[in-house]
Amino acid sequence: MTLALDAAAQDLLFREARTANTFSDEPVSDEQIQAIYELVKFGPTAFNQQPLRIVLVRSEEGRARLVQHMAEGNQAKTSTAPLVAILAADNEFHEELPTQLPHFPQAKDMFFSERSVRESSATLNGALQAAYFIVGVRAAGLAAGPMTGYDAAGINKEFFTDGDHSVLAVVNIGKPGDDAWFPRSPRLAYDEVVTTV
Amino acid sequence: MTLALDAAAQDLLFREARTANTFSDEPVSDEQIQAIYELVKFGPTAFNQQPLRIVLVRSEEGRARLVQHMAEGNQAKTSTAPLVAILAADNEFHEELPTQLPHFPQAKDMFFSERSVRESSATLNGALQAAYFIVGVRAAGLAAGPMTGYDAAGINKEFFTDGDHSVLAVVNIGKPGDDAWFPRSPRLAYDEVVTTV
Repeated sequence: MTLALDAAAQDLLFREARTANTFSDEPVSDEQIQAIYELVKFGPTAFNQQPLRIVLVRSEEGRARLVQHMAEGNQAKTSTAPLVAILAADNEFHEELPTQLPHFPQAKDMFFSERSVRESSATLNGALQAAYFIVGVRAAGLAAGPMTGYDAAGINKEFFTDGDHSVLAVVNIGKPGDDAWFPRSPRLAYDEVVTTV
Repeated sequence: MTLALDAAAQDLLFREARTANTFSDEPVSDEQIQAIYELVKFGPTAFNQQPLRIVLVRSEEGRARLVQHMAEGNQAKTSTAPLVAILAADNEFHEELPTQLPHFPQAKDMFFSERSVRESSATLNGALQAAYFIVGVRAAGLAAGPMTGYDAAGINKEFFTDGDHSVLAVVNIGKPGDDAWFPRSPRLAYDEVVTTV
């Protein structure tokens, strides 16, 4: 069975792409991140809600504010990656919804009047967009090092003072460095994951 | 700024890909789904936990069992799509973790002894994998129609009798049919999504 996607693209995005734990010194520009965003922004979300928000950590001060909230095992790589992105869900995404869903503006009030519903929806759809972003980083020829080992409440308070954002992942971004990855761990077999009814 | 991914692949996966609301009669084979899985299984998850489970709905009986739990506006397309996949998170993914993370088998007990922690992690990482799967459907030259409008508790009880699985999305899969999509809704601008510190 052959996919429509060419083999080189399959390798770039999935088969040869790896989560990097070390990075080279080569910088990652705003233009690269914008090119990634302009591609992956088209990935689908429910009601086109697009809850993902991204904080690029560029200053030394910002890096220090982030690293203190990372798990110990993630601090060294978060300190040294050329660029670090905080991916978060905006739990008040519904404010923009009428503009983003012009053929059904009443969705905002019909489905998203309750904060708990918004939070669940923003988490799920923000995670979809986080995955599109990781694929996009690889599409740019860069390695992504996504992490979820951190004090989430600490990051939320440190970087999102409005109380309306929830961190989903922190992603180191750059060209891989020396010994950038462990041997690849096994994946579940098709029959362990897929059943038919 | 040019991405490393070729333009045709960018179009196939993101720029020209659309959420389909109607489908042609052309069937979708198990071989196509397996080819998709064998590619997207390499997408990263935290601790390589791989919580995504997929139920392919092929029988008439299975389709009827699913459609009754879908929101009214999703019933017609779920009834007529060539293949429907239920994407769910396995909240007991930690049972397989020592095999999936051979260099750190103690992660199972260190991080995932509490069910509530497992559920949060399975939701987030299962959603990442759901997004990889949607990208994979497109990589196969097929259209995906992901939906979250359904009675989740009803689907969980109907298809996962162990009480350990949570549906994340239901995805119609096939070649697009007549009038398969609405005009594309707007995406948030880069400056509305990305900030720098």
